[in-house]
Amino acid sequence: MRPRATQYNPSVKMTGAECLLRTLLKNGVNVCFMNPGTSEMQFVAALDRVSGMRPVLGLFEGVCSGAADGYARMTRKPAATLLHLGPGLGNALANFHNARKARSPIVNVVGDHATAHQAFDAPLSADVPAFARTVSDWVRVAGSGSEMGSLATKTVEAALGPPGQVATLIVPADFSWNEAGEVGGAANIASRARATTGDLENAASILRELGPAAAVLIGGETVVDAGLKAAERIAKGSGARLFYDRNTSRSALGRGRFAPQRVAYFPEKAEAQFKGLRHVMLIEAKAPVSFFAYPGRKSTLLPDDCAVTVLAGVAGDGIYALEALADCFPVPKFAFERRDRVHSVHSQESLTTETIGRAIVFHLPEGAIICDEMVSSSEAVVPLLGMANQHDFLPVTGGSIGQGLPLAVGAAVACPDRKVVALEADGSGMYTLQALWTMAREKLNVTVVIFANRRYRILDVEMKRTGAGELGPLANQMLDLGRPDLDWVKLAEGLGVEASRATTTREFDDQFQATLKANGPRLVEAVL
Amino acid sequence: MRPRATQYNPSVKMTGAECLLRTLLKNGVNVCFMNPGTSEMQFVAALDRVSGMRPVLGLFEGVCSGAADGYARMTRKPAATLLHLGPGLGNALANFHNARKARSPIVNVVGDHATAHQAFDAPLSADVPAFARTVSDWVRVAGSGSEMGSLATKTVEAALGPPGQVATLIVPADFSWNEAGEVGGAANIASRARATTGDLENAASILRELGPAAAVLIGGETVVDAGLKAAERIAKGSGARLFYDRNTSRSALGRGRFAPQRVAYFPEKAEAQFKGLRHVMLIEAKAPVSFFAYPGRKSTLLPDDCAVTVLAGVAGDGIYALEALADCFPVPKFAFERRDRVHSVHSQESLTTETIGRAIVFHLPEGAIICDEMVSSSEAVVPLLGMANQHDFLPVTGGSIGQGLPLAVGAAVACPDRKVVALEADGSGMYTLQALWTMAREKLNVTVVIFANRRYRILDVEMKRTGAGELGPLANQMLDLGRPDLDWVKLAEGLGVEASRATTTREFDDQFQATLKANGPRLVEAVL
Repeated sequence: MRPRATQYNPSVKMTGAECLLRTLLKNGVNVCFMNPGTSEMQFVAALDRVSGMRPVLGLFEGVCSGAADGYARMTRKPAATLLHLGPGLGNALANFHNARKARSPIVNVVGDHATAHQAFDAPLSADVPAFARTVSDWVRVAGSGSEMGSLATKTVEAALGPPGQVATLIVPADFSWNEAGEVGGAANIASRARATTGDLENAASILRELGPAAAVLIGGETVVDAGLKAAERIAKGSGARLFYDRNTSRSALGRGRFAPQRVAYFPEKAEAQFKGLRHVMLIEAKAPVSFFAYPGRKSTLLPDDCAVTVLAGVAGDGIYALEALADCFPVPKFAFERRDRVHSVHSQESLTTETIGRAIVFHLPEGAIICDEMVSSSEAVVPLLGMANQHDFLPVTGGSIGQGLPLAVGAAVACPDRKVVALEADGSGMYTLQALWTMAREKLNVTVVIFANRRYRILDVEMKRTGAGELGPLANQMLDLGRPDLDWVKLAEGLGVEASRATTTREFDDQFQATLKANGPRLVEAVL
Repeated sequence: MRPRATQYNPSVKMTGAECLLRTLLKNGVNVCFMNPGTSEMQFVAALDRVSGMRPVLGLFEGVCSGAADGYARMTRKPAATLLHLGPGLGNALANFHNARKARSPIVNVVGDHATAHQAFDAPLSADVPAFARTVSDWVRVAGSGSEMGSLATKTVEAALGPPGQVATLIVPADFSWNEAGEVGGAANIASRARATTGDLENAASILRELGPAAAVLIGGETVVDAGLKAAERIAKGSGARLFYDRNTSRSALGRGRFAPQRVAYFPEKAEAQFKGLRHVMLIEAKAPVSFFAYPGRKSTLLPDDCAVTVLAGVAGDGIYALEALADCFPVPKFAFERRDRVHSVHSQESLTTETIGRAIVFHLPEGAIICDEMVSSSEAVVPLLGMANQHDFLPVTGGSIGQGLPLAVGAAVACPDRKVVALEADGSGMYTLQALWTMAREKLNVTVVIFANRRYRILDVEMKRTGAGELGPLANQMLDLGRPDLDWVKLAEGLGVEASRATTTREFDDQFQATLKANGPRLVEAVL
């Protein structure tokens, strides 16, 4: 006998919560990262009545939103998140912001007070849609239990885009416990727009004519094998420069793969990369801009007289555009750029971001997934990744730190057979360290490396760049993560993750290798 | 020679950031809880050029917003917060939500991209005012450097209300580094509205006539000695029942003080407290409602035919109303309710929330400040507090957990000569455990007690109440904080706070006492 759907009213055949769950499952949404509260208890209870959903608990909502982002980047399909009212959603916003910039599909379910209760300004009352709109262009509030199925289908449709987004469905508690209507149907996903043959042929002539004074900038979902192979043919056939958006949500890197240049973080470097360009073709990327503005500096990065053509917008079919464009050049389909392995580190070398990077690159297993939140340490490490075994690279897409560890949770849930390597700055890691507990509970196959420079190091640089002047003692304290030093080994162990500390290159090399052999999460704190 | 205001443009005499800082200081705002980024570097640099502001770093923004709330509750004046763009503000929202419900004055300064940069959808671009409006009814975006001073004054005015609120000033980075206008003037704070003599005399006759069928419900800033003394005279003189809002941001409790009944959390209990009431006078409180709605239950708690009179709204002068009302009753001004001390615990007793509560109450030093986020454990502890030495009690006002530890930071910064005791559930503590690091850095005089029941225990209750049915194995996992168990001793030590674990009543009693003698933060994990 099936357990009753509700204790409250045994005549209810299928609650709204069950209907929502069934509709999500019907649409292939079968992982839910959650931190539920009272308003979501019906959904939680339904997990045992409707089989197929894997619930993953985060001890802070930012873990859930970041994990859903990581999951979406690796699977290209949405996970659900289940969050509690306005403030619970509030805690998830920073990583939803990153997910929004990554254009990751996410079905974000948020409970609200029962409709009749909303007029009373109870303590947890808040304007839930207002919280949601900060990160979601698609926000709906369920208006009845009977529409739960159709609305859930629409939420999946909105999440999947293209290009993909955080779609938020707000469910007042009474629609979760009341009788629902029919289970929703299959989501109807819009197709991606394709460039016309004329546009592509025109682009090909421009590239052919301008050669290295032209460039193709790719992003979105194109920085994968199919896109890179086509990009290589275009580069070879036209002589044009090939770049990829530094905020691309997932990039395929490593030896044997064509490597477009990654657009630099600081504007001077990016401007140097783009120097002399007269025309840029954009494919699932936007014209590059500076991350921050600085006094006396413009925000755009391309030369002022550089023309821009969009061959595929962010919702367009970039792989099609790349392959069709490549077909305009009569180039054999062999690869021309192959890199050596990096040298292993010597135990006499001191421990620096560069030696850490070399050790990681030397040992990185084939098929690894790197979650990069190294911030100031990344510039020493990322350029080496082309010499590593082939892997996927997931950066912080929206600049909001606290993303790396949750992203690793989601990537590991999505790809249980691959090693996830989270490269994490100490300052950034602190925002969402609760993710380590979820790694432990779910026995996720994650190696975390903490780059412990004990400082918001990037702000030393940014302080100078914004013309804020010399760093006085009080300002210095605000950039300093020491006094007291964080002990990441204890923090990890406190959250159930085995951990060790490396203060020399040899220790790091040994410890990092050991983590790769382990099944389940491990953390190495590299003290710089 | 004064250091230059800027490296960018030495002709700038006073930057917008300096002007903002000077205006805040002029208005007595001299503590700033911050987690700044690039857009706020000018403000950070200005800390060393303009003396008087105490900057306190939080390693997560929710620490800053919760600390500003705790500071405001104890000082009745605003601290500033300094946060980084939309997502940084996003991380602070849950505790700003609590601060909003507490009606705490806070000057919330948020940096945004420079104005010319805002059109470019850079990675960190977001709709900052939209984030702010979720918790702030007063949101302004600086429109020029020259208005920084006057706008800062207006922000202080808005924050102080009455009754007090989170007032948000968004500052585009260029207005921080450009030349400012004049330093702003002194804030002009509106006065609180007072009840008329006629209203008060009318209320007095109703109370006199109805006696125990009438009640006075107080809240806001009235649950302090002056208000309690007047409340006692009203109770004695009229026979009316006296209650206080359970979400009052700060309540004076302890032996020797009159103790109105605290409105219960669960609606059945609250309804029992209010049974038979025919008229309720509200003083800085609103008509009580259920925290959550449950199937088949109404949200209001007073009897349906109970009349309600507002003698002081939340922005009204409640102390005036209480004292004027008390003067209507010819009662001597002696106290009539005095309580015994609690019994000390016996080492043979097992460790329960009740024995922990007794030990805390027995040892609590005079003048302590309790930050309560015990959640399911609170019902065993809070009723004992009337037997403790006199103290202030700060609850979670908006129901958003993750408030207790940050609140303790703010209370300890506000009151360095008093012992702050943060009573914290393990689940709630995990949301903002980064607060422990700030306690360590600032050497704050805080004792943290973790009630480690290793479960979202309150949800076991709420699951039943919402009629969600029996707890199946998957649902059970979502309420379970074990597998792996959190180790709060390691977490605290990892964040620089000395800690110990108690598994028996004797251990708890000894360890708790020891923390009270220490200078600086200590944590005791009480394993239930």
